[in-house]
Amino acid sequence: MGNQYNTLLNKIHQLHDLEKAAQLLVWDREVNMPPMGAAGRTQQISTLQQMIHSMGTSDEMGALIEQAADEVQSEGHPYDSVEASLIRFVTRGYAEGKKFPAEHIARITEVSGAAMPVWAKARQENDFPSFAPYLDQVIELSQEQAEILGYEDEKYDALINQYERGVKTADVRQVFDTVKAQTVPLIQEIQEKGDVIDDTFLHQEYSVATQQKIAPYFAEAVGYDFQRGHIGTATHPFAINFSRDDARITTRWNKQFLNPFLFGTMHECGHAMYEQGTGEDLARTPLARGTSMGVHESQSRMFENLVGRSYGFWQAHYHKLKEAFPSQLGDISLDQFYKAINKVQPSFIRVEADELTYNMHIILRFELEQEMLNGKITAAQLPEAWNNKMETMLGIVPENDSNGCLQDIHWTRPSFGYFPTYALGNLYASQLLDTATQQNPAINDELANGQVTALHQWLGEHIHKSGSKYDPAELISRATGNTLDPQPFIQYTTKKFSAIYELYS
Amino acid sequence: MGNQYNTLLNKIHQLHDLEKAAQLLVWDREVNMPPMGAAGRTQQISTLQQMIHSMGTSDEMGALIEQAADEVQSEGHPYDSVEASLIRFVTRGYAEGKKFPAEHIARITEVSGAAMPVWAKARQENDFPSFAPYLDQVIELSQEQAEILGYEDEKYDALINQYERGVKTADVRQVFDTVKAQTVPLIQEIQEKGDVIDDTFLHQEYSVATQQKIAPYFAEAVGYDFQRGHIGTATHPFAINFSRDDARITTRWNKQFLNPFLFGTMHECGHAMYEQGTGEDLARTPLARGTSMGVHESQSRMFENLVGRSYGFWQAHYHKLKEAFPSQLGDISLDQFYKAINKVQPSFIRVEADELTYNMHIILRFELEQEMLNGKITAAQLPEAWNNKMETMLGIVPENDSNGCLQDIHWTRPSFGYFPTYALGNLYASQLLDTATQQNPAINDELANGQVTALHQWLGEHIHKSGSKYDPAELISRATGNTLDPQPFIQYTTKKFSAIYELYS
Repeated sequence: MGNQYNTLLNKIHQLHDLEKAAQLLVWDREVNMPPMGAAGRTQQISTLQQMIHSMGTSDEMGALIEQAADEVQSEGHPYDSVEASLIRFVTRGYAEGKKFPAEHIARITEVSGAAMPVWAKARQENDFPSFAPYLDQVIELSQEQAEILGYEDEKYDALINQYERGVKTADVRQVFDTVKAQTVPLIQEIQEKGDVIDDTFLHQEYSVATQQKIAPYFAEAVGYDFQRGHIGTATHPFAINFSRDDARITTRWNKQFLNPFLFGTMHECGHAMYEQGTGEDLARTPLARGTSMGVHESQSRMFENLVGRSYGFWQAHYHKLKEAFPSQLGDISLDQFYKAINKVQPSFIRVEADELTYNMHIILRFELEQEMLNGKITAAQLPEAWNNKMETMLGIVPENDSNGCLQDIHWTRPSFGYFPTYALGNLYASQLLDTATQQNPAINDELANGQVTALHQWLGEHIHKSGSKYDPAELISRATGNTLDPQPFIQYTTKKFSAIYELYS
Repeated sequence: MGNQYNTLLNKIHQLHDLEKAAQLLVWDREVNMPPMGAAGRTQQISTLQQMIHSMGTSDEMGALIEQAADEVQSEGHPYDSVEASLIRFVTRGYAEGKKFPAEHIARITEVSGAAMPVWAKARQENDFPSFAPYLDQVIELSQEQAEILGYEDEKYDALINQYERGVKTADVRQVFDTVKAQTVPLIQEIQEKGDVIDDTFLHQEYSVATQQKIAPYFAEAVGYDFQRGHIGTATHPFAINFSRDDARITTRWNKQFLNPFLFGTMHECGHAMYEQGTGEDLARTPLARGTSMGVHESQSRMFENLVGRSYGFWQAHYHKLKEAFPSQLGDISLDQFYKAINKVQPSFIRVEADELTYNMHIILRFELEQEMLNGKITAAQLPEAWNNKMETMLGIVPENDSNGCLQDIHWTRPSFGYFPTYALGNLYASQLLDTATQQNPAINDELANGQVTALHQWLGEHIHKSGSKYDPAELISRATGNTLDPQPFIQYTTKKFSAIYELYS
């Protein structure tokens, strides 16, 4: 490689290392830091973020990128080379970083800083009107953000592209409409069967010490590598990485409910294994990272749901759970357990939703964000709009806003466009598994025996190793030969829940 | 404050935050990082250290310091103000940082990088000759270092001042000679009593889970604040801090030996409590740090030995240990326990030495470092010189160099001058406690009941809160009204061990 590219690469490595240090300040805050350490830590994070921002948007960086881009082009590196991909990535990132006026960023900090405590209090006291003026400001900032970022067709495109590069709102809308049209009747059909699945045994005393002892077993069962990983404890679980060889997760331990640690661990492992799988040739560059929130979520959902809630997985591993909790699960058969962890139940809270109803929570938010962004509803009109959609999609209406439109922290800051990536993840996951098993039927045989080696091989090759070289739509198309397709998810859920609920057609 | 000072302070805050991020990369490496994460982490640490070095020695920083120094002087801030102290500190630090040529630093990295694995292998295989050529290079680098740093009286002054600013080798030598002259006969007298103390019960199975459960009790018993602290697990225990409100320790857990976790925890708490006690007015500056290695060690030894191995402490807290380990300690009386943890026994390994013989290990190294530095002995002559001194001071000779001059990692890099701070810490600790109890006799009453509130008050006021405002000798003099004085240590050990060993005079 030429000099210009190497000079840029050096700078990118430095910036990368500084970003990882900043991320470690965050990880440590959530996992180890004593309560009083918060004030000093906030300053440290802020200092590093300022350094990162100023390095990343400096004129020097701009010039380095331009010179290296010329060199890479003149040397004729192919489109999918690391060199060409990195230049594409940093050119776009630099331009976007320069777009936001300092004044806009300062206002975001100010508005969300003020909105957060008001929202927390409003949720606690079920007082939406006190939060409404702040939400109006968030809506306004989101509208400005869309104008700053720019868009061709719809405002919302600009926002969703921050999390899912290159995706069009119109395409997402069409796909979500299809999912909704197929899922709503399925949920209704299940509802009509009545409360036929008993999952009360999942809600009893489960020793936290035992959970912590067996969590590594289930992490390894889905393919997580502890030589390159680590489990910490945090209130809100997340995955984070400091290199492909140090991709960690956090888990929470609920002593009254078995699911959070079990499926939370497998979910976060899915995220972390994506990072563990990025190519060595991408190390210390921004390409060494999952390409989008949606594709990332496809990996977490793959291992939490498609693998972790499958019959084959528990056929192989249920004995381990029974050994750990003999008095709680000793009398529970594999079939009882499998049905309980897959129970479908329309409910108010997104983060507690089951695999089938979850997308409805997202589609609802996706629709409402657009209405707010496009000025169709104001903050004050949100509760009514929310409740109407809940009734249409899930057949239930929350008794108060705390269990309705006040439940998520997301709208205390301008993060419109983020929510849909959760549902995109579910759809990508099924689409990827569908292609993978078509290309290699051994994957299915393995999954039926609780094994994941062949699946990991396929994901590593078609998703993980390219990191952020390709935009999400491009990556999905390279991997599956198709655009985003909701049919695999629809087929998977229809088949799975028809069997569980004995929905004879 | 004027503009120039505030501009400097801003820069210093940034540098501080970056340094803390670099330290967190280190803490996390020792406590959480998975094995494969090492390569990426090394790069991250190196990147941040380069940034810190280049910020700290930049011409911009030099100019800021100069302008702020002029301003502080013209505004007439008193000597002991934060402003004047900070200017003193950073002016000296900047000048020292500029002294080392890049070429010298690169050679240190190179030589120690090569020496480390050779030393590890040599120690394992008891093969000193293979390490000797590397030690000769370390000696040469140390000689160069002394010339670079400069000195008035003796070469060794330059080196010891890196860890203990302003101390003169001649003064240390005189004090160490006094200690040696008094300690050697005391050790001999104890030896002549024969093996009268049974400490075998300390060496049996002690559950690690139980150790981890009760460690916080003993940390709090010596005054450690968990709202501003945290215990992690590491192979080589250390204390580290990210602010005065986040000062942590690590401990190791030996399942066959009670002492390491117990006294290790109290030792590291002593270090951490020094940092927790630095003044709020020093936050985010390099003054928010213990002033020297020696004074730092005085705080760790204070709580490990003067408090943690005292009869009063165990009179108050032994029941807690007995409850935790009933089958191991149920039949052991308080007096038996107290004697066992204070057993004196000349031995080969410094880190396993008892309170009385420990200083002999240090004085031996202090003398040998000078002989090597001044060209009186070469590396090849070290083993013989080592063994002679062991025989003179402790009456024993190691059967091989692995248990002799190869035991410490320190001489794989030019760190001459570091060892004596361990013994200085022991001496400072006794001197400080002596003054403290003279000024406030309630301290002794409390200690006799296992309480440390009054002691902490005194240390906070006279040592902790001033951080690095004063050089160590100046701080000791402000606190005790005296220069370094070995007599309190000599009196303390004479009294303590005469009683334990019934040395009737």
